[in-house]
Amino acid sequence: MSATAARPPAATEVDQWLERFGAALERGDAAGAAELFAEDSYWRDLVAFTWNIKTVEGRAEIADMLEQTLARVQPQGWHATEEPTTADGVTDAWIEFETAVGRGKGHLRLISGQAWTLLTVLDELTGHEQGLGPRRPKGVAHGANPERQTWLEDRAREAEELGHTIQPYVVIVGGGQGGIALGARLRQLRVPTIIVERNQRPGDSWRNRYKSLCLHDPVWYDHLPYVKFPPNWPVFSPKDKIADWLEMYTRVMEINYWGSTTAKSAAYDEDAGEWVLVVDREGEEITLRPKQLVLATGMSGRPYTPEFAGVDQFQGDQHHSSAHPGPDAYRGKRAVVIGSNNSAHDICAALWEHGADVTMVQRSSTHVVRSDTLMDIALSGLYSEQAVAAGMTTEKADLTFASLPYRIMAGLQVPVYEQIREHDADFYARLEAAGFQHDWGEDGSGLFMKYLRRASGYYIDVGASELVANGQIKLQPGQVDHLAEDAVVMADGTELPADLVVYATGYSSMNGAVADLISQDVADKVGKVWGLGSDTTKDPGPWEGEQRNMWKPTQQEGLWFHGGNLHQSRHYSLYLALQLKARAEGIDTPVYGLQEVHHTR
Amino acid sequence: MSATAARPPAATEVDQWLERFGAALERGDAAGAAELFAEDSYWRDLVAFTWNIKTVEGRAEIADMLEQTLARVQPQGWHATEEPTTADGVTDAWIEFETAVGRGKGHLRLISGQAWTLLTVLDELTGHEQGLGPRRPKGVAHGANPERQTWLEDRAREAEELGHTIQPYVVIVGGGQGGIALGARLRQLRVPTIIVERNQRPGDSWRNRYKSLCLHDPVWYDHLPYVKFPPNWPVFSPKDKIADWLEMYTRVMEINYWGSTTAKSAAYDEDAGEWVLVVDREGEEITLRPKQLVLATGMSGRPYTPEFAGVDQFQGDQHHSSAHPGPDAYRGKRAVVIGSNNSAHDICAALWEHGADVTMVQRSSTHVVRSDTLMDIALSGLYSEQAVAAGMTTEKADLTFASLPYRIMAGLQVPVYEQIREHDADFYARLEAAGFQHDWGEDGSGLFMKYLRRASGYYIDVGASELVANGQIKLQPGQVDHLAEDAVVMADGTELPADLVVYATGYSSMNGAVADLISQDVADKVGKVWGLGSDTTKDPGPWEGEQRNMWKPTQQEGLWFHGGNLHQSRHYSLYLALQLKARAEGIDTPVYGLQEVHHTR
Repeated sequence: MSATAARPPAATEVDQWLERFGAALERGDAAGAAELFAEDSYWRDLVAFTWNIKTVEGRAEIADMLEQTLARVQPQGWHATEEPTTADGVTDAWIEFETAVGRGKGHLRLISGQAWTLLTVLDELTGHEQGLGPRRPKGVAHGANPERQTWLEDRAREAEELGHTIQPYVVIVGGGQGGIALGARLRQLRVPTIIVERNQRPGDSWRNRYKSLCLHDPVWYDHLPYVKFPPNWPVFSPKDKIADWLEMYTRVMEINYWGSTTAKSAAYDEDAGEWVLVVDREGEEITLRPKQLVLATGMSGRPYTPEFAGVDQFQGDQHHSSAHPGPDAYRGKRAVVIGSNNSAHDICAALWEHGADVTMVQRSSTHVVRSDTLMDIALSGLYSEQAVAAGMTTEKADLTFASLPYRIMAGLQVPVYEQIREHDADFYARLEAAGFQHDWGEDGSGLFMKYLRRASGYYIDVGASELVANGQIKLQPGQVDHLAEDAVVMADGTELPADLVVYATGYSSMNGAVADLISQDVADKVGKVWGLGSDTTKDPGPWEGEQRNMWKPTQQEGLWFHGGNLHQSRHYSLYLALQLKARAEGIDTPVYGLQEVHHTR
Repeated sequence: MSATAARPPAATEVDQWLERFGAALERGDAAGAAELFAEDSYWRDLVAFTWNIKTVEGRAEIADMLEQTLARVQPQGWHATEEPTTADGVTDAWIEFETAVGRGKGHLRLISGQAWTLLTVLDELTGHEQGLGPRRPKGVAHGANPERQTWLEDRAREAEELGHTIQPYVVIVGGGQGGIALGARLRQLRVPTIIVERNQRPGDSWRNRYKSLCLHDPVWYDHLPYVKFPPNWPVFSPKDKIADWLEMYTRVMEINYWGSTTAKSAAYDEDAGEWVLVVDREGEEITLRPKQLVLATGMSGRPYTPEFAGVDQFQGDQHHSSAHPGPDAYRGKRAVVIGSNNSAHDICAALWEHGADVTMVQRSSTHVVRSDTLMDIALSGLYSEQAVAAGMTTEKADLTFASLPYRIMAGLQVPVYEQIREHDADFYARLEAAGFQHDWGEDGSGLFMKYLRRASGYYIDVGASELVANGQIKLQPGQVDHLAEDAVVMADGTELPADLVVYATGYSSMNGAVADLISQDVADKVGKVWGLGSDTTKDPGPWEGEQRNMWKPTQQEGLWFHGGNLHQSRHYSLYLALQLKARAEGIDTPVYGLQEVHHTR
């Protein structure tokens, strides 16, 4: 109420830290700046300092990063953007700053006056801002102009020229939500881009899947950039509804989307510094020459099916889960679903609902969390109706999430899953009593860490677990030995009579797509995609600190990976788009800490 | 900062007034409640008290309205929803209240402790709330259910049944932005509705118009319900871009939209209490039997062309502005455009830009405001980037606008246009020097009042006026006498040689559509549509206080009119939808003050 009121202690603590930090950076004192961090500390940078997605840990790494970047980045103007708060001894602050080429945002956590975590993100490139809000286009150029082209004529000309007489700067292979979100960002940054997608229409990658599929993540988590889902949007979007949204979004965001187009081969022309990408567009072979090639073929883009003996003997229907048409044709039939993760559960439940005799083959333990519990306990603080009501925006939620370095995230997740275990103790007891092999991740860190480490090994329960617990979905543990004419035969000799076998056996790494499209050499050079190096199942060490190869430079010039769930597609598309835009504009982008390759798949 | 701090004076004034007002209403004391209003006062009610859109003026009318509605409405719980403010002696407050059937919102202006204006609107019907935010649908029903239908199957079944084996409760004739906005509201209120539209696709009524057409209202004014335009949307949307948006909106809002469908005839079956509506859907004749029929054929739905002598002699092209294909075919040709309002100016400018020789025939004076000036001076407080930045939401802007009774609106508009006149004095001087007959409305109240009164007589200048002022568009004042083989001949004998004549001569009242679709008897019974009874040109008295027949009950049971610009379509669609929903649910809806009919067209 009073203009002379003292700043609250948290604000003063933050102001003082930022002032000292800013001063050290301005005098080029990397060691001095690093001294402002706790011994156990983390600086996560998305593009602002490193032209990379990089977490440096501890004072030595922080000092090294600053020594190599400071002269070029010239950061300044550090300030808090809202009132900092203190809880449990940790002071939280939202911050902004500027660099030589752009404007940044960030988040700071102080303990006893020292930085515990710092997040810095590049938000926009000065002089290359997006045309949003006050910068939105006028639409019609007022005044009289004999050279005037209408919007429709401009769009038609662009469609005619781009990829033919004018080369796109970026080609994104894969037009699911990841490619579309990135395409929208690049459009707003005025980077000429084409998305190529083998399906006909945006959304078809959802439409073509089994009919009971719904998003397992709730609506607040799933917004695309720029256009939020309306308030009537369902919490869990049915697949065909999200498909319609993606189609509409692609159109209104004016994305150059080549449907019914297959990427056949790509090779990097070192001399020209561009890709030679051959695509088949509705039967016409076209060679595109983009400077940058983004693979957004999806974590779930390349089905993996084990090579069991006898598959050619089997007389019934068999297919990978990604090709499963839905349950309608299997009423009264015997279905064996191999696998026990999300797709396996969904398909088993839909088959049971349609009167099939269903057996789930569980080959390894699976982590299950009930959807409602996951929403209430794990997500509600950032992504929920309550969070929205409390003023949490999607953008702020994403940055909050991004502000937690992966090294400490697993530890912070453990108590969340302990709470879930207690909350649903009866549920887990019944599930295990039915013989279901359940785990919580090797370190008890639960579902999200499994996703970040290996993108598999879990089921978000929307009802199938009850069918497993009460025996309506039969459970068969163990390994498959082979297929007979009319059965799946297990290693212990158990025969599972089958009219239908569904291989819900997952997907292989995106660098398999590199091998297919480019070459095995380039796939090996780039290495494994996804995972943190946590040294847990399917995520071998050494520790990487960030997800391998995702949204950041790779060992192959001009080659990028984009994808993840809707949250990640939305959030990281901005940082990937800014990296591409900077290159398109000829801005110097020296990469600090380009990842080494330790695994080829 | 202190829990015991005194309420600010404005808050106390509002609290006290609401307490006395609420107490008077609760004891059924209509006269006592009316005494709390100033002698010169206005209560505008949108559906909450009157099941009508009605402004009552002065204590006597207020008391009468309350006497006839109070026992049924049972209003209670009046309270301010945010801190009231005082400026220039007027205290402003946002309020909420409840009625026997729903929840209401409103706005109150007090002068010296007495109410000057009160707005009350019904916001939702208790027990029939829209599924928004915390009430949004879950999307997938968790658990196992052998009867499960997917979203896609549900949508397909609805498309198959509605209008065939199941009758819609509402049919909306006309699928432009008005019909679409109302269709979206009714969908959210779970009222079975079909929109019939003669064009194939949503948005075609924009696509089919002259190619240079852009919205003359800015983006902040134009949002549809539920889905806001994204931050990259242009200020003035090109026609084909808004068309795409409408098409996508119709799809994602799951509106039952029958394109390529012509409404051929309608008759009200008194005994059944329903309409017998015959439509032609892609060649198939279908009879629909809705309880409620909404005409949303547009203020600009029925072209009006004067019957000049000699039109059958004229050898060149001639068409109404609504059928003008654009300028491309007329390079080097002589074009005469009859009319001097929005369409006339747009078409003249585009023809000039394409190298035609263009003459505009001005038959009566026109009000012109430069678009930028209109935005800065007339709209920016409610609908602009600055307003958004200051926390003004679209919904609050709409209610603010609605809170001004039409009786006092004209007077409040006069100084706005005086400011505009001063701001652009040079512009108007040059325009008039070129011979352009310019006016500010009969009482100087400018553009928006002209729109509300007659929906014609103005041009929002986006560049054509400069061409008029400098003579590049030739100006011909006076009346047309007849057309010759190759010329338009004026009453004074002037011949205007012409290869093309465009009749930018406007549109006729929506009750012409009633005569065409239903009967002349019903058209006459319902009377003139639009206008306030301001006793100015094309808006004869007596004073109505609200727009005739729009969004409220008419003299024909089950017949409604919907439309207006995007702002009105958005705002009033809620109140029309609530009136329809209440009837669908059998809620008692006695109409207070049903308008009398004074004019048949």
